[in-house]
Amino acid sequence: MAPERLVVIGGDAAGMSAASQARHRRDCDDLEIVAVERGRYTSYSACGIPYWIGGEVPDLDSLVVRTPEAFRAKQQIEVLLCTEAVGLDLARGEVTVRADGEERQVGYDRLMLGLGAVPVRPELPGLAADGVYGVQTLDDGAAVRAAVEAGARRAVVVGGGYVGLEMAEAMVRRGLAVTVVDQADQVMSTVDSDMAALVADAMVGLGIQVRLGTAVRGVETGPDGRVRRVVTAAGGYDADLVVLGLGVRPNTALAADAGLPLGESRGVRTDRRMQVVGQPNVWAAGDCVETFHRILQRPMHLPLGTHANKQGRVAGINIGGGYATFPGAIGTAVTKICALEIARTGLSEREAAGAGFEYQAVTVGSTTRAGYYPGAQPITVKVLAERGSGRLLGGQIVGREGAAKRIDVLATAAWTGMTVADLASLDLSYAPPFAPVWDPVLIAARKAAEQLS
Amino acid sequence: MAPERLVVIGGDAAGMSAASQARHRRDCDDLEIVAVERGRYTSYSACGIPYWIGGEVPDLDSLVVRTPEAFRAKQQIEVLLCTEAVGLDLARGEVTVRADGEERQVGYDRLMLGLGAVPVRPELPGLAADGVYGVQTLDDGAAVRAAVEAGARRAVVVGGGYVGLEMAEAMVRRGLAVTVVDQADQVMSTVDSDMAALVADAMVGLGIQVRLGTAVRGVETGPDGRVRRVVTAAGGYDADLVVLGLGVRPNTALAADAGLPLGESRGVRTDRRMQVVGQPNVWAAGDCVETFHRILQRPMHLPLGTHANKQGRVAGINIGGGYATFPGAIGTAVTKICALEIARTGLSEREAAGAGFEYQAVTVGSTTRAGYYPGAQPITVKVLAERGSGRLLGGQIVGREGAAKRIDVLATAAWTGMTVADLASLDLSYAPPFAPVWDPVLIAARKAAEQLS
Repeated sequence: MAPERLVVIGGDAAGMSAASQARHRRDCDDLEIVAVERGRYTSYSACGIPYWIGGEVPDLDSLVVRTPEAFRAKQQIEVLLCTEAVGLDLARGEVTVRADGEERQVGYDRLMLGLGAVPVRPELPGLAADGVYGVQTLDDGAAVRAAVEAGARRAVVVGGGYVGLEMAEAMVRRGLAVTVVDQADQVMSTVDSDMAALVADAMVGLGIQVRLGTAVRGVETGPDGRVRRVVTAAGGYDADLVVLGLGVRPNTALAADAGLPLGESRGVRTDRRMQVVGQPNVWAAGDCVETFHRILQRPMHLPLGTHANKQGRVAGINIGGGYATFPGAIGTAVTKICALEIARTGLSEREAAGAGFEYQAVTVGSTTRAGYYPGAQPITVKVLAERGSGRLLGGQIVGREGAAKRIDVLATAAWTGMTVADLASLDLSYAPPFAPVWDPVLIAARKAAEQLS
Repeated sequence: MAPERLVVIGGDAAGMSAASQARHRRDCDDLEIVAVERGRYTSYSACGIPYWIGGEVPDLDSLVVRTPEAFRAKQQIEVLLCTEAVGLDLARGEVTVRADGEERQVGYDRLMLGLGAVPVRPELPGLAADGVYGVQTLDDGAAVRAAVEAGARRAVVVGGGYVGLEMAEAMVRRGLAVTVVDQADQVMSTVDSDMAALVADAMVGLGIQVRLGTAVRGVETGPDGRVRRVVTAAGGYDADLVVLGLGVRPNTALAADAGLPLGESRGVRTDRRMQVVGQPNVWAAGDCVETFHRILQRPMHLPLGTHANKQGRVAGINIGGGYATFPGAIGTAVTKICALEIARTGLSEREAAGAGFEYQAVTVGSTTRAGYYPGAQPITVKVLAERGSGRLLGGQIVGREGAAKRIDVLATAAWTGMTVADLASLDLSYAPPFAPVWDPVLIAARKAAEQLS
């Protein structure tokens, strides 16, 4: 009997994790695996792009976890690079792919969608001009780095989310004058404004111009068709280079055209096993799907490498005949702007209020180590606890070295539905080089419990 | 009506946390508070002593969280220093205290015991000699530092537990030749031998001589009565200075003589509110009590500053008329030997087997940050999961900067009885400067879940 064929669309984390897991369970005689990737790389860390542009990571290749050659040699997974999936016929079980300007059909028995996301690009004059970049793929990253190396001097980052701020820092490191423009009245809308103010201060300290409450009206181009100036409601900013940091949306045009079910977020709808709803032979994972938020109790678009890897793995195990489920997420995230670490999990105040929660918010300042120990750094911890139940709804941390990874304790506690009173009792590690005798997250939880009672 | 009087025996973490909380709830007109402390300091970080001796912490005063003067001025808590409690009459409600060679009785309405612990000092020839030090109080620490400054060149540390290893490093930093002698076949008996081997390697790399499986037979003194040589089954080691690192035992002779109930560990037995069992007006907390181990489901002696602070607080709230309970502990601990970080929580293999658990142990190696990110350091994570239930029983971490504090995720998971399969699904923070896309603790949990299924 001929082997079944699994076609994987998208050669990054979700798609290739699925391919690997499927291969792990089914050998070549049983399952042929073909992955199509529109870019030139497989299984790369898009999250690492800002650090390559900033120079901390010396070469682009180190961002590639596994090359197409390795997939072929070690796992007998065929990878077609520079090959775009442009059509999908569910009834016939065929993907139309385009490479070198030629189109052809590839039939599948099983289909895995790792379509990824695309940068949000508002419909404004000039935003499609040369010199305006998203930062979603290694190819995007290579384009930005090429622009920097070609002599760009002034950069404007539109949008102050994670990627925008990471790119702002990277470009400052490379000697560019950088302005971040955001129409919101704070950077990093995923944290509360009091915590975001600490981040904005750090950015200004780094020499980044921060322009909040400032809507972009468009981009002016020069005679060469390249970006020259970003125009806002509050004036213009000269720019040789514009980075879009407005977030991303699911790259699901292909899926929608084929009739696959999308949710409100425009992410592909899947079940717990990452199988597309109503489609027995189609799976999807990563930035193209919507993910169940366990505290908000609804699906959302949560594009993040860690979910893409886990979901891809789940899809691959199921494609391979095993059983695995993805239990959802709670919005944990972390980043670093120069020496400032920023982390969050669960609900922000805006999210909590939007979901109808009443809550107590408590913010405490402490140190990352015992106050007397060398290298003790400031840390600010904020927790939100539900009124009545006392349940931990979310947490945010801003601080210096050693601060942010403490968010994982809050993430674990929020995941299990722990109350702040229980959280305050946890047996966390203590020694002077690692924490004050009351860890800052315990102090925050204790104060929240006191205020609730 | 005259105020009640609370007498606190012991001016460190447990006693003074209780005193502060009691004062917080009851003012001077209602409650007089008198604390007696045999040493010269209050509320100090004994955990910080090795770092002061090693020179990282510049002065002893910085280890004192709150001075007697501050307790008097800010909280109207009277502190009697250099005053030892030498007798306790529960029927009369009187403590006999000795200061400057004179004894007197102090009556109490309520009594708080923060008696602390004393170093284990085996009955061996010479172990009471000058130059043999425990490291339990600031006064002990000052004595060791004085010996170092008086020109000690060679030190022997007897016992390779946390404090012993921290002291070994401190003395190496001060230029002494240091030998650690332990009769066990591994250092740090609180972690498993495979993890302990990593610690021993690091110690040797630091220039510390490590002699395992070597029982100490006694200490030889010179004509001046000071220690000169440590004699073991495997030969002698010259020493100007000996540090006892054999652990501590509850300092409960006074309590036992008064007829207070002690457990098997010789710690004072308390209820959840830290009230001494059967004694309506007596509370106890910290290194002198036994603490319920939530996973072993039995009381143990777990002397650690973090428990002392929490338990003292609970006692003080209850003394003050409030309501608080201490929910137990799970044996979380962390330390640092030079650049090597070591942490543990829950049960080690020996403890798990001793309690009758069958378990799967999994050890994984990974990096603290994305492998390509500068400063990524090695980390080894070990988890123990119960056979059948899959419940996380314990975890151990050894690694370089950024490794050890991850133990808090395992501590939180073990505290809640989470399975390793659930742990592997947690939404932990990810960004290249902070973690690989699969955090090392998730990888360990995932592998344990796979091996169990």
